[in-house]
This record gives sequence, structure tokens and C-alpha cells, in this order.
Amino acid sequence: MEILKQRIRRDGHALSESVLLVDSFLNHQVDPFLMKQVGEEFAARFLDAGIEKIATIESSGIAPAVMTALEMNLPMVILKKQVSSIMKEGIIQTEVFSFTKNATYLLTLKEQFIEKGERVLVIDDFLANGEAAFGAIRLIEQAGGVVAGVGAVIAKAFQDGLTKLRTAGYRVEALAPVKAMRENTIEFGED
Amino acid sequence: MEILKQRIRRDGHALSESVLLVDSFLNHQVDPFLMKQVGEEFAARFLDAGIEKIATIESSGIAPAVMTALEMNLPMVILKKQVSSIMKEGIIQTEVFSFTKNATYLLTLKEQFIEKGERVLVIDDFLANGEAAFGAIRLIEQAGGVVAGVGAVIAKAFQDGLTKLRTAGYRVEALAPVKAMRENTIEFGED
Repeated sequence: MEILKQRIRRDGHALSESVLLVDSFLNHQVDPFLMKQVGEEFAARFLDAGIEKIATIESSGIAPAVMTALEMNLPMVILKKQVSSIMKEGIIQTEVFSFTKNATYLLTLKEQFIEKGERVLVIDDFLANGEAAFGAIRLIEQAGGVVAGVGAVIAKAFQDGLTKLRTAGYRVEALAPVKAMRENTIEFGED
Repeated sequence: MEILKQRIRRDGHALSESVLLVDSFLNHQVDPFLMKQVGEEFAARFLDAGIEKIATIESSGIAPAVMTALEMNLPMVILKKQVSSIMKEGIIQTEVFSFTKNATYLLTLKEQFIEKGERVLVIDDFLANGEAAFGAIRLIEQAGGVVAGVGAVIAKAFQDGLTKLRTAGYRVEALAPVKAMRENTIEFGED
């Protein structure tokens, strides 16, 4: 997605060979018009996938996911990292390891929000090692859903999440796959 | 906002006199079209307020806030409850007490995302005792911004956040103010 890549080149910062800062338009400050374009792009790419629901992971995936859901005219479900005290019945959980935080967290879904056989598209802001995506997939499949696609706004193609998901048979679309980063240089491409 | 109140009556559940469950369309499963309508309603109500940026609190406010930001053609900033390891410079923080969780958390803002004198509209899913809203206000004002409005999708008008905010001089719009709840009955109104 050229307009997204241009924005990453202009406003993103490669803080190291593996850390990409995009907090001025994607995950702290958010450009809603860019999110709308991202939603339109995901909708176009997954048009033929028979998607029935959008799922995302709390919380940086919510903005692009809700725009995708709006564009595809589908409900969205937020897989929760934080569980409120009133959310305790009918839930399923899975452990996810976060490399960025070097800690494990529980991802939670109220099972009733994924129906048996429902075709789900998982949208997230970043795909790196795939831990969060596989956590989302475990929950959706445990609830009886079918993961019909995974969409990442940005994928760090130099980490192994993209390959692992595809090897496992999942269809993955990355709007801005990053092949390599050096200080002040971001190279796009899937391999 | 009549369509929202109808939805709350149909799909919301008063779990007690103070707990309203709306997780099938607002904060776990999310109806993106309703969020778009919510965004349009906030945009209309704050049309004359000279708003320059939307702020919200991670994470249930993100969906209605990004739709409001899109409708008003403004950037949005997400005040963070979880801080990533790459977010450490130029940040300001404030302690917020959560009655639901009976615990204190730190709300975080990278100061550069609120400009001096910038007129900010704070959007959140719920307004109850106002702790989160006042936390957001402290951060925005500390960064030099002006809180020109607070918009809550649902306000529990029987708790004191709405009154406290207005007494402190803030303009508050609640799309669905709830006056009282009993099992299976939700009564709307501001007092």
C-alpha cells in the first residue's frame, strides 16, 4: 500500500534494526483518514475470502480493525489483554508471550462472540514474531471459528511471524512489509 | 441519541443497580456502523467548540473516538494505560484510580502529541465517577492543551462524574445518560 509506505518513510523512525516507531500516526497519535484507507485496502484484499467477522487484539489494532469492519459491513470483536471484573462467565483464555515486554499475558475472548464455523479476519497493527497473531488464532479456533485471514498494517518481514503463519496455512496480507531497517532507512519488501 | 438508547435497551443488560453490560456492541464485540453514528453525533454536538484534536483513553474509547476524529477530520491521540518499552522519552503520566478494578494505574501521554493551546475533545465509552476523564484532563492540561469538551457514549448519571466535570467548568455531552438501573430496566435521563 504505497500511501502507507510513504507515510512510514516520512513519519516513521527506525530506532534500531528491529524497532520501528510509528507513534505519530498509528499507535499513539492516530491518523483516522489513513486508518480509513487501511480499512478499505484490507476490505479489497480480503473481498473474496468470505469474511464474516473482524477480530483484533487490544489495543493498537482497534483503529484499523474498526475501519476494516465498517468498510466490510461486519461486526468486530476485540480480544482483550485486560479483563474487567464483570467479564468472567463464558470466557476462554490463552497465554501470549510478548517479546517487547518480555512477559506473558492472557488474551481473553467471551466465547459467544465467535460462532461455530464463522470466518474471521484478524487485523493488527504489527506482525513481528507472530506470537499475538497465533494467540488470536488459538482463541478463535477454540471458540469454533475459522481464521480466514490475517491482516497486518506493518509486518516486520525480517522476523519470522509472516513465514510461520503462511507455513501453518494462513493467508496473510501485510500492507507495509518491512524487509530491513537501518538507522534512517526503511526497506520495504517481503523477503 | 435515540438509536443508541434503543440499542442499549435491546442488547444491554443491567447486571446490578450500577453495572451495565454492553459488551455485545460497544466494548468487546463492537458494531462499527453504530460507532460511525456515534462519531457523527459527537461531531454535530461539538461542531461549535473549535476542537482541534480528539483524545481517548485506552482502550474501549478508541472505536468511538476514531470515528469522531474521522468525521471531524482531526487527528486522535490515545492516552495509554500500557506503556511499551520504546515509549519512554518525553512522556508525562498521571495516576488514575479505577473503581471497577479497585486499583490505580498510570495514564501516559507523549507530550509532543498535544500542542500548547490545542483544543481537545476527550471521548470515552463510559463516564461514571469521572476518575478516567479527570486523569485525561490532567495530562492534556499539563501538556498545555485546553479541554474543550468531554464526550461519553454512555454516562451513569447516578454516579458523580457528570456533575463533577460540569461543576469544574467542562462541557460534557453524554449520548446515552442513564438515570437509574434495576434488573431488566434501564431508565435514561440526566437527573
